[in-house]
Amino acid sequence: MLSIGIDLGGTNIVASVVNDKYEILGTGKLPTAVPRSAEEIFDDIASACKNAMNQANVNINDISSVGQGTPGTVNGDGVIEFANNLGFDNVPAKDMLKERLGDVPVYIENDANCAALGEAYAGCGNGASNFVAVTLGTGVGSGIIVDGKIVSGVNFAGGECGHMVIMVDGEPCTCGRKGCWEAYASASALIRQTRAAMDLYPDSAMHDIVKEEGKVSGRTAFDAMRKGDIAGTNVVNNYIKYVACGLINIVNALQPEIICVGGGICNEGDTLMDPLRRYVQAERYSIHSKIQTKIMKAELGNGAGVIGAALLGSKNQ
Amino acid sequence: MLSIGIDLGGTNIVASVVNDKYEILGTGKLPTAVPRSAEEIFDDIASACKNAMNQANVNINDISSVGQGTPGTVNGDGVIEFANNLGFDNVPAKDMLKERLGDVPVYIENDANCAALGEAYAGCGNGASNFVAVTLGTGVGSGIIVDGKIVSGVNFAGGECGHMVIMVDGEPCTCGRKGCWEAYASASALIRQTRAAMDLYPDSAMHDIVKEEGKVSGRTAFDAMRKGDIAGTNVVNNYIKYVACGLINIVNALQPEIICVGGGICNEGDTLMDPLRRYVQAERYSIHSKIQTKIMKAELGNGAGVIGAALLGSKNQ
Repeated sequence: MLSIGIDLGGTNIVASVVNDKYEILGTGKLPTAVPRSAEEIFDDIASACKNAMNQANVNINDISSVGQGTPGTVNGDGVIEFANNLGFDNVPAKDMLKERLGDVPVYIENDANCAALGEAYAGCGNGASNFVAVTLGTGVGSGIIVDGKIVSGVNFAGGECGHMVIMVDGEPCTCGRKGCWEAYASASALIRQTRAAMDLYPDSAMHDIVKEEGKVSGRTAFDAMRKGDIAGTNVVNNYIKYVACGLINIVNALQPEIICVGGGICNEGDTLMDPLRRYVQAERYSIHSKIQTKIMKAELGNGAGVIGAALLGSKNQ
Repeated sequence: MLSIGIDLGGTNIVASVVNDKYEILGTGKLPTAVPRSAEEIFDDIASACKNAMNQANVNINDISSVGQGTPGTVNGDGVIEFANNLGFDNVPAKDMLKERLGDVPVYIENDANCAALGEAYAGCGNGASNFVAVTLGTGVGSGIIVDGKIVSGVNFAGGECGHMVIMVDGEPCTCGRKGCWEAYASASALIRQTRAAMDLYPDSAMHDIVKEEGKVSGRTAFDAMRKGDIAGTNVVNNYIKYVACGLINIVNALQPEIICVGGGICNEGDTLMDPLRRYVQAERYSIHSKIQTKIMKAELGNGAGVIGAALLGSKNQ
C-alpha cells in the first residue's frame, strides 16, 4: 500500500511516495516561493506529487491516500484557517488537492502534528501509541499522540506545548503570553541567553568562538563549555534546566511512553539528552511507578513531517 | 443497565448504585478509618456496596460492572501501586473486590480521573469527548479525557496537571518540584497568599474577617475584596492570574472542548469564573479558531467521583 506525504513549508514543498514499511520510494521538491496565491502554491504541490510518483514509477491509481502537513491551523474540513508564514486565510486545502490529484482520499494536518505521527510510527517511537514529539527550533514545536492518534483538540489547534507558561510574567513570547516554554527552550532563546551571558562576561571563551564562526548560534555556549568556560557552562546548564522543566510538565500531565526531542540543538547528543533524563528522573511525579516515560532523541529529522503526513490516511483515522 | 461506583477516600468509603441515566439509586457510606489493613478496608468497601444495593433494592446479578476510584497510582492489573494517605503499597484492589463481590467485571482508577470521567459524561461536560477536569482543593487535582477515555498514560499516573511548573524555581511543592501550578492555584496556596498579604498589610479588612471567622480560609481574600479592601483584591487578582495561567497551558496543549473547574473555591461563582474566562480568551494560542475551549464550573461536586467510577466499565473500556 502506497501513500503520498506532503510537507508544505515556508521555504519548500516536499512530496514523497511512501510504502507501508515507511520507506520513501520517490520525492518531488519545489520552492514554496511565498508570497504567492494559494492557487499557484497548490499547482506546485500537485507537480511535486507527480514528480514523486514519476520517480517512484507509480501513478495516482497506486496511491491509497494523500496526506499534507502544513503550518497553521487546519480544521476538520481540511481548510487551512490561518497560516501566517504562507499568508493563508481560510484556504480549502483538501478540496484544492482533490481538484488537482483526482479522486483519492486526502487528509490535511498541522505540520508539527504530522512530524509527531511520523516519529511515533516510523522513528524513535517504533509504534508507541502514547507519544509526544518536541522540536527545539526557532520555536518549540510539539505534537501529542494518544492511543495512536494525533490530539488536535476541538479546534485542531492542539499540541502547542511550547506555549505553556513555565515562568509567570517571564520573557515575552511571540504568541503574546509571557514566560512560555518556547521563550526559554527554543534555539532562539538559547541564542538570546548566550548573548546575555557574553555581555556580562567579556572574558568568556564564547567571544572567541563567535569571532571565529562569525555569529552567535545554538552551539556557541556548548562549544565554550567543552573548552571549560564557566559562563558558557552556566548558559548550557540553565538552558537544559528550562528544557527539562517543560518535558517534566508533559510527563506529569500525559505520562506518554516516549517523549521525542528533535531540532538542531539535539546534535549535541548525550551532552543534552543525559542531563535531561536525569532531571526527568528526579522530578517526575510518577516516582513510585515501575514504568516511566523514555526521553529519546528524534530519529527522522526533517523527514518526519513527510512520513507522518503519508500516515494520516492509514494511522490517524 | 446498573453499575456500582465506589469512591475510596482518606476519610470515607462511598458506594452508589448508578443507572444509565447517571442517577444514583442507592448509596452506602462507611468511614475509611485509616490506618487499617487493606483487608479490613476492602471488607468495608464490600459492605458499602451491599448497603447501596439494599437501598436500591437490587443484588449483584443486576450489576453489570463495578468501578472504584482511589487515591494514588493504579496499574493496568487493578493494583494500587502506591497511595500515601491510605498507607497502600501494591494492594491488589481489583482481585480483592472480586473476592468479596463475586464474578462481576471490576475496574480501578485514580480518583481524580474518575471525577473527570463523571463530569465529562454526567456533569458540565454533557458527554464531551475531549475534556479536562481541574479541582482547586488542598492540591490541584486533574483528569484528562481524550476521545471519551481517561488519559492515564504508560504507567497510569497521568493527568497530574497540578504538577506542571508555572514558575521555574518558585514556591516549593509537596511533590518535590518548585513552582508547580498546585503551589500557586490550590486552596492551600490561596490561604498562604492571604496570610502573606495580611502580614504586609496590618490595616487590611482581612484581619477583621479572620477575627470573626476564627481562621484564614480560601474565602477570606474574596470577602475582603467584596468590602473594597485593596490588599484582599490584590490577593484575589493574583490568585486568579495563577489559576488562569495553568488553564491556558492546558488549552494550548490539548484544546479540549471543555475545562471544568471544581473545588470549594468555585463557590465564588462568576467572581472567579468570569475573569478566568477573560484571561483564557486573551492569551490562548488558538486566537484565530472559531471554536474555543469552554471554561465551566463543575456541576457534580463530590458526586463526580462515584458516578465516574460507575462509568469505568461502560465508557472507559
